[in-house]
Amino acid sequence: MEKTNNNNNMNIVKIFIAFILIAFTLPLLAQNLKSPDGNLSLVFEVKDGKAFYQLDYKGKAVIKPSSLGLDLFNDKFGLTNGFSLSKSESTSFDETWTPVWGEYKQIRNHYNELAVTLNQDAAKRFIVIRFRLFNDGLGFRYEFPEQPNLNYMVVKEEHTQFAMTGDHKAFWIPGDFDTQEYDYTESKLSEIRGLMKAAITDNASQTQFSPTGVQTALMMKTTDGLYINLHEAALVEYSCMHLNLDDKNFVFESFLTPDVQGKKGYLLAPCTSPWRTVIVSDNATDILQSTLTLNLNEPCKIENTSWIKPVKYIGVWWEMITGKSSWAYTDVPSVKLETFDYSKASPNGKHAANNEKVKRYIDFAAEHGFSQVLVEGWNIGWEDWFGKSKDYVFDFVTPYPDFDVKMLQGYAKSKGVRLMMHHETSSSVRNYERHMDKAYQFMVDNGYNSVKSGYVGDIIPRGEYHYGQWMVNHYQYAIEKAAKYKIMVNAHEAVRPTGLCRTYPNLIGNESSRGTEYESFGGSKPFHTTILPFTRLIGGPMDYTPGIFEMDMTKLNPDNNSHVNSTLARQLALYVTMYSPLQMAADLPENYMRFPDAFQFIKDVAIDWDETRALAAEPGDYITYARKAKGTNNWFIGTTVDENGYVSNLSFDFLDEGKQYIATIYADAPDAHYKTNPQAYQIRKVVVNKKSKLVQKCAPGGGYAISVIEVSDKAQTKGLKVLK
Amino acid sequence: MEKTNNNNNMNIVKIFIAFILIAFTLPLLAQNLKSPDGNLSLVFEVKDGKAFYQLDYKGKAVIKPSSLGLDLFNDKFGLTNGFSLSKSESTSFDETWTPVWGEYKQIRNHYNELAVTLNQDAAKRFIVIRFRLFNDGLGFRYEFPEQPNLNYMVVKEEHTQFAMTGDHKAFWIPGDFDTQEYDYTESKLSEIRGLMKAAITDNASQTQFSPTGVQTALMMKTTDGLYINLHEAALVEYSCMHLNLDDKNFVFESFLTPDVQGKKGYLLAPCTSPWRTVIVSDNATDILQSTLTLNLNEPCKIENTSWIKPVKYIGVWWEMITGKSSWAYTDVPSVKLETFDYSKASPNGKHAANNEKVKRYIDFAAEHGFSQVLVEGWNIGWEDWFGKSKDYVFDFVTPYPDFDVKMLQGYAKSKGVRLMMHHETSSSVRNYERHMDKAYQFMVDNGYNSVKSGYVGDIIPRGEYHYGQWMVNHYQYAIEKAAKYKIMVNAHEAVRPTGLCRTYPNLIGNESSRGTEYESFGGSKPFHTTILPFTRLIGGPMDYTPGIFEMDMTKLNPDNNSHVNSTLARQLALYVTMYSPLQMAADLPENYMRFPDAFQFIKDVAIDWDETRALAAEPGDYITYARKAKGTNNWFIGTTVDENGYVSNLSFDFLDEGKQYIATIYADAPDAHYKTNPQAYQIRKVVVNKKSKLVQKCAPGGGYAISVIEVSDKAQTKGLKVLK
Repeated sequence: MEKTNNNNNMNIVKIFIAFILIAFTLPLLAQNLKSPDGNLSLVFEVKDGKAFYQLDYKGKAVIKPSSLGLDLFNDKFGLTNGFSLSKSESTSFDETWTPVWGEYKQIRNHYNELAVTLNQDAAKRFIVIRFRLFNDGLGFRYEFPEQPNLNYMVVKEEHTQFAMTGDHKAFWIPGDFDTQEYDYTESKLSEIRGLMKAAITDNASQTQFSPTGVQTALMMKTTDGLYINLHEAALVEYSCMHLNLDDKNFVFESFLTPDVQGKKGYLLAPCTSPWRTVIVSDNATDILQSTLTLNLNEPCKIENTSWIKPVKYIGVWWEMITGKSSWAYTDVPSVKLETFDYSKASPNGKHAANNEKVKRYIDFAAEHGFSQVLVEGWNIGWEDWFGKSKDYVFDFVTPYPDFDVKMLQGYAKSKGVRLMMHHETSSSVRNYERHMDKAYQFMVDNGYNSVKSGYVGDIIPRGEYHYGQWMVNHYQYAIEKAAKYKIMVNAHEAVRPTGLCRTYPNLIGNESSRGTEYESFGGSKPFHTTILPFTRLIGGPMDYTPGIFEMDMTKLNPDNNSHVNSTLARQLALYVTMYSPLQMAADLPENYMRFPDAFQFIKDVAIDWDETRALAAEPGDYITYARKAKGTNNWFIGTTVDENGYVSNLSFDFLDEGKQYIATIYADAPDAHYKTNPQAYQIRKVVVNKKSKLVQKCAPGGGYAISVIEVSDKAQTKGLKVLK
Repeated sequence: MEKTNNNNNMNIVKIFIAFILIAFTLPLLAQNLKSPDGNLSLVFEVKDGKAFYQLDYKGKAVIKPSSLGLDLFNDKFGLTNGFSLSKSESTSFDETWTPVWGEYKQIRNHYNELAVTLNQDAAKRFIVIRFRLFNDGLGFRYEFPEQPNLNYMVVKEEHTQFAMTGDHKAFWIPGDFDTQEYDYTESKLSEIRGLMKAAITDNASQTQFSPTGVQTALMMKTTDGLYINLHEAALVEYSCMHLNLDDKNFVFESFLTPDVQGKKGYLLAPCTSPWRTVIVSDNATDILQSTLTLNLNEPCKIENTSWIKPVKYIGVWWEMITGKSSWAYTDVPSVKLETFDYSKASPNGKHAANNEKVKRYIDFAAEHGFSQVLVEGWNIGWEDWFGKSKDYVFDFVTPYPDFDVKMLQGYAKSKGVRLMMHHETSSSVRNYERHMDKAYQFMVDNGYNSVKSGYVGDIIPRGEYHYGQWMVNHYQYAIEKAAKYKIMVNAHEAVRPTGLCRTYPNLIGNESSRGTEYESFGGSKPFHTTILPFTRLIGGPMDYTPGIFEMDMTKLNPDNNSHVNSTLARQLALYVTMYSPLQMAADLPENYMRFPDAFQFIKDVAIDWDETRALAAEPGDYITYARKAKGTNNWFIGTTVDENGYVSNLSFDFLDEGKQYIATIYADAPDAHYKTNPQAYQIRKVVVNKKSKLVQKCAPGGGYAISVIEVSDKAQTKGLKVLK
C-alpha cells in the first residue's frame, strides 16, 4: 500500500498498527515490551508504589531497574510514589516518512509501544508513561493528561534514573546550564569526578551544577562491547535535561535546568515531557545510523517546505574569529545605540564587513558554486556587544556606514548568490524578540532567506539560563516565527538539538557544541570530531564550519598562537562525517586559492543525501561515513581519526552492481601530522566499482575524503587505475 | 513675544534664560540657589569628599543636610565619596507650555538651576548633580555624562537622603516592589514601624522590603505647618524609588526596586537618574496645584497629538468586580489556549461581555453622552488567568464565542460610540510583548483607539518586580508603541506615574493605587480620596473609576458584603477632585437610572480644563477643587471629606466679574452618612456670581459637587435664588 501525502512532504509507505489493549488492573504484573527485531527488551513495573523500568539488549542488561517520577513544588504528593498500575496498553507502529532534507531519502519509524497509566489515588490523579522500543533503542516520556486534579505543575526535579551496569567508558562534557562548548573527556564513569575541574574551560556564559554532572547526548561503551547513548528527543516547553551521576552505583539521574528562582519547569496539562532516549547496539556504527531521535519528534508542521534548501556557504567570519579583523566599525568603549552617530565615528580600519570585501566574497562564492555568503558585523552595535549585560545591544536592521545592504544584495543577486543574515543577540533576548518581526521582514525585503543567530554571554532576562524552559521556549518561538517569513535558522549557542528539525525543517543548523572556532581559541582535542557524531549530532545537524586549510593562526593574526588540530585532508572529510544541510567553507578565500586541488572537494561535496552508511566507527578513535548524494549515483566518503592515526580498510561494496565510478581520494601524505605537518596531502584518482577495496593510512589527527562519481562516459576513465 | 510651535502642540509663550557660569574650581565654597520667588533656598556642598544638599522654605529648614550618591556593583570606588567640586553652573529658565490635555490651559515652567560637576579623581571620572528650584519645590537628579572611565554601571543602591527636621505627620502606604494598592495610614514618622504590619493588606502580588519602608509620593506635614511632598519625576530606564526611614533620626533614604538578582539598575552613560522631587509650601492647596512633576519631564515627543482626546466612559466591569458576573465564559479549572475549543465549552451563564449586554451598554453610552464603553472579559483565556504563573495566558485578539467584535464595533459606530479595548496581561509580560503589535493592529483594524491594560499577579519573567527597571522599561515600551498605532493607554497595576504624560500624552490614565474596586473588596478608608490628590496624583492622573451609586454590594451579589465608604454626593465630587482626562462612570446603568437627577452631574462634568483652583485642602481631612471646563466659562466644583464630615466655606470669587451662572449643587442630605445613609442627597439650583459665598455641610465620608454654568439667557435664571 502506498499513499502520498504531498501536504507535508511525507510519503507514508507502509503503516501497520496493532492494538493490544490490556485494560484491567494489573497491580503485580511486570509489563514487558520487545523491539520489533526482538533484540531490545523492556520491563516496566510498579513496586511499593514506585515506577521502575529496565532494558536489555540481546539478553545483556543495558539499564538496570531504574526509578521514574517527578517532584513538584507546592504539591504534597509529588509524582514519584503512591502509584498503582491501572492500565497498560501496547501498540505497534510502522511507517516510512520522507524528510525535507537529511541523511536518508526515507526514514522508517518502526516501534512497539507500551503506555502505562499510573494512578495516584491519594491525589485522585494519574499520569501516563509511554515507552517506544525501536530496533535502535528506547524512548520514553511522561504524559500528563487533562483531568480535574492535575493541571498546573511546577517541577522541582525530574527523577528519571538510568542505572548503568558497570563503570563504563564515557565520552562526556561538564554538565552546564549555559554552554556545551567544551572539549570531550574520555574516561570511566568513576573518573568523572576527578577529571571534572580540568574539563571545565572558560566560556562567555557557563554554570555548572555538580562534580559528576554531564550533558547529553552522552556516549558510553561497556567493557563487553555495548555502545549506549543517552539523550532526549523533542525538547519543547520544558527544561533541558542533564545527567547527574551517582558514581558509587553508576546511576545517572535527570537534572533539569532551573530558572532564576530554581524552578525547573512550568507545566499545564495536557502536556508531556520530552522523550528520554537510550540508543543501544553492539556495533558503534548503528549508533551513528540511529534515526530514533528524529522518529520521536512530530512530523513536519510546515505545510509548504519548498523554500527550505540545504546551503553551502562561505562567510566574512574566520578573519574576525582569528582576530585578523573586527566585527566593530569603530573603537569606542561603549555605544548607546539610541544616540550614537556612526557617521561621525572614526573607522578602526579593521572592520571586515565592508562593501569592497563583501563584494570580493560574493565573487568568490559565485565562481566556486557557494550559494550564500554569511557576513557578520554588518550591523551597528558591535563595539560593546559582549559581556556588558547590555539590553539594547542590536537593532538587527541598521547597517554600518560601510555596508550597503541594497547594493550588496543586488550585486549578489546578479551573481546568483545570496547574503546570509546574521543576528547576534548577545543573549539580550527581550531585545531580540522586540525586534524580531522587523528583523525578519527586513530579511524578506532584502532577499535574505537564512539567518545565523547567536546567543553569546549571559541571558537577559538576567538569571535565566541558556538551557532553561524560558530559553527553550524562545528558541522555538524564533524558529516558528522564522517559518512564517520563510526563513531558515541556524542558531548558535542555543540549546542542543533534539530532533526538532523533523518538525521544523527550517531549523537547518545549530552550534550548541565546541565548533571550529575553538581551533582559533587555543585548539580542540584532535579526537573531537571522532566523538561529535556520537554525541552532539545525535540531536541534529551542527554548523561545525569546517574547511580550515591554514592551521597556523599566526599567519592570519600575529597575536594568535592557536593551531588547528587537524590535517587538511581531515578538514575535507568533515564535510561528510559532520552531517549538516548547512555547510560552510570557513577559511579565507585566499587560503583556498593556495590549495585549489584540495578545495575542489569542498566544491564537489553534496550537502543533501539519499543514503548514508557509517562504515566504520569507534568513538574517540575514528569514524568513516559514505553518503550518496541526493538524486545521483555519486558517493562521498569521509574518515576522521584521533591523535593516534589509523589505517582504514574500506570496501566499496555499497556501490551499485555493474557500475563504474571515478574516485578522487584526498588523503594525508605519508608524513602528515596534525601538529607538525598538517597541510601534507595527496590527491589521486582511481576507478572503483562494487568490488573495490581501499587500504588508506590516516595521519595522527588526520583522515581522508573521497568523491565517487559515476562514470557516464568510459572515456573519462582513460589512464586511471582500477582499484581492486 | 509669542511663538507657536504646532509641531508638538506647545505654545512657548516666554523664554528667558540667563547663564551664570562659574567654571573655576570651588572646593570649599558652598553653592547656593534660590527659587524664582526667593522662598526656597538650596545649599549644596562637598564635605570630606561627600556631597550634601539642604533645603529651606521661607527661612525654615525643609531638608536638613542630606548626603547624595550611589553604590555600584563591581566598582571599587562607588559614587558616594572621593568627590571634589570641579564646576558649578547656574542658569534660569522660564517658559510656558501648553499641555495636550490637563488641569491647566498653559503651564509655566520657571526655575533656577544649579549643576555641580563632581570629580572623583581616584577613578578619573565625574558626575553631575543638577538641581532645579521652582517656586513650588525642588527637583534634582544624577547625571552620568559620556566619558572614558564611566560607561556601564550596575546600581547596588542609590543613597539619596532626605533628612527631615522632625517627627512629621505622614500619609503613607507600605513600601512594596509590586503594588501601591494599599489604604493610607496617617501617623507620625516615629509610628510607622509600629503600624506597618496592620498597613499591609493582601494583594495578588506584593513584596515589602522594610518595616519603615514607604512609597512615594509621600505627603507630610510638619508641626509648624509646612507641607512636604517627596516623589520622583521622569522615571525612565531606571528602577522605581521607595523611601526607607531611619526613624531614630527621621532621615529617609532612597531604596530602589531590585531585579531578581538584587541588582537595582543597569545604566549606560550618557544617562541620568529620574528627578527626585521635594514639593513644599505652607499652604496645602499649593501642593495640589504644583506643576513641578510635569515640568521636570521632557516636552511632548509625539509629533501629531490630534488623535489624543480625553474620554468619559462606562464599562462592563463593576459587575465582575462585585462578583455579580464573570470575566470567564466557561467554568473549567484550566485552559490551554493553544488547543481549548471554546465553541464546545459549556457557557457558565455569568459571562458579562456578551453581545446583548454590550449592545445595551452602547445604547446607554449613546443616550447619556459617554464616548466609550470598556468591555472586560471579551477575549479568551479568563478561566485561569490569575495566580497560575501562566505564560501563554491571553492572545489579545480572539473574542469569546458570544462577543462579536465586528458587529459590536459597527453597532457602536452607528451610535457615535467606541468600544474601549482591554488587555489584561496577568503580568505575563513576554507574552504581552510577543502579541503587542498584533493586538494593537487588531485595535486599529476594529476601530478601538484606547486600551486599558492590566498587570495583575506576579511578573513573568519570574522574579522580576512590577516596579523594577525591567518593568519600567516595559511600560514605556507599551506606551511608545501604542503611540505609533495612535492608541491611548490606561495602564493598571503599572508603576506609579511620574509626569511622563507630558512627554507621552497618550498615557491618559494609570491606576497604580487603591482604586474604587477596593470598595467592593472590603472597602477603603473614608478619608482615602482626601489623600490621593496629595500622593498618587502628584505623578499624573488616576483612573479611579468613581461614580458608584449603590453602596451595598449585596444588592449586586448576595455573597459580597462589602460597602462603599462614601456618600453618593461625594461620588459625584470625585469627578472634580480626582483629576483625570479619563473618567469612568463605574456603576451599572440600572443604578444610574435609579438616580437620574444625580447622574446628571456625571453627564455634565467636563474632563478637560483650562483652569484649576484648589480652594481648600487638608490632607486626610478635606479637599475642594474648582475647575474651569476647557473652552467654556463653566466651572465644576467638588469637595471630598473624611469620616468626620466638614463644613465647607466656598467663595465663588474665581468667577468672571459681571457674569452670572447657574449653580446646581449636589450635596449630602443633612442626615447623610457614608456608612448608614450614603444615598441621601439633595440637589438645588441657585444663581451665583463672583461675590457669591456658600456654606455647605458635608456628611461623614461625604462631599458635594457643583456645576456652575454660565447664563447665556437671563430667562434661564427665572425663579432661581441668587446666592449671596
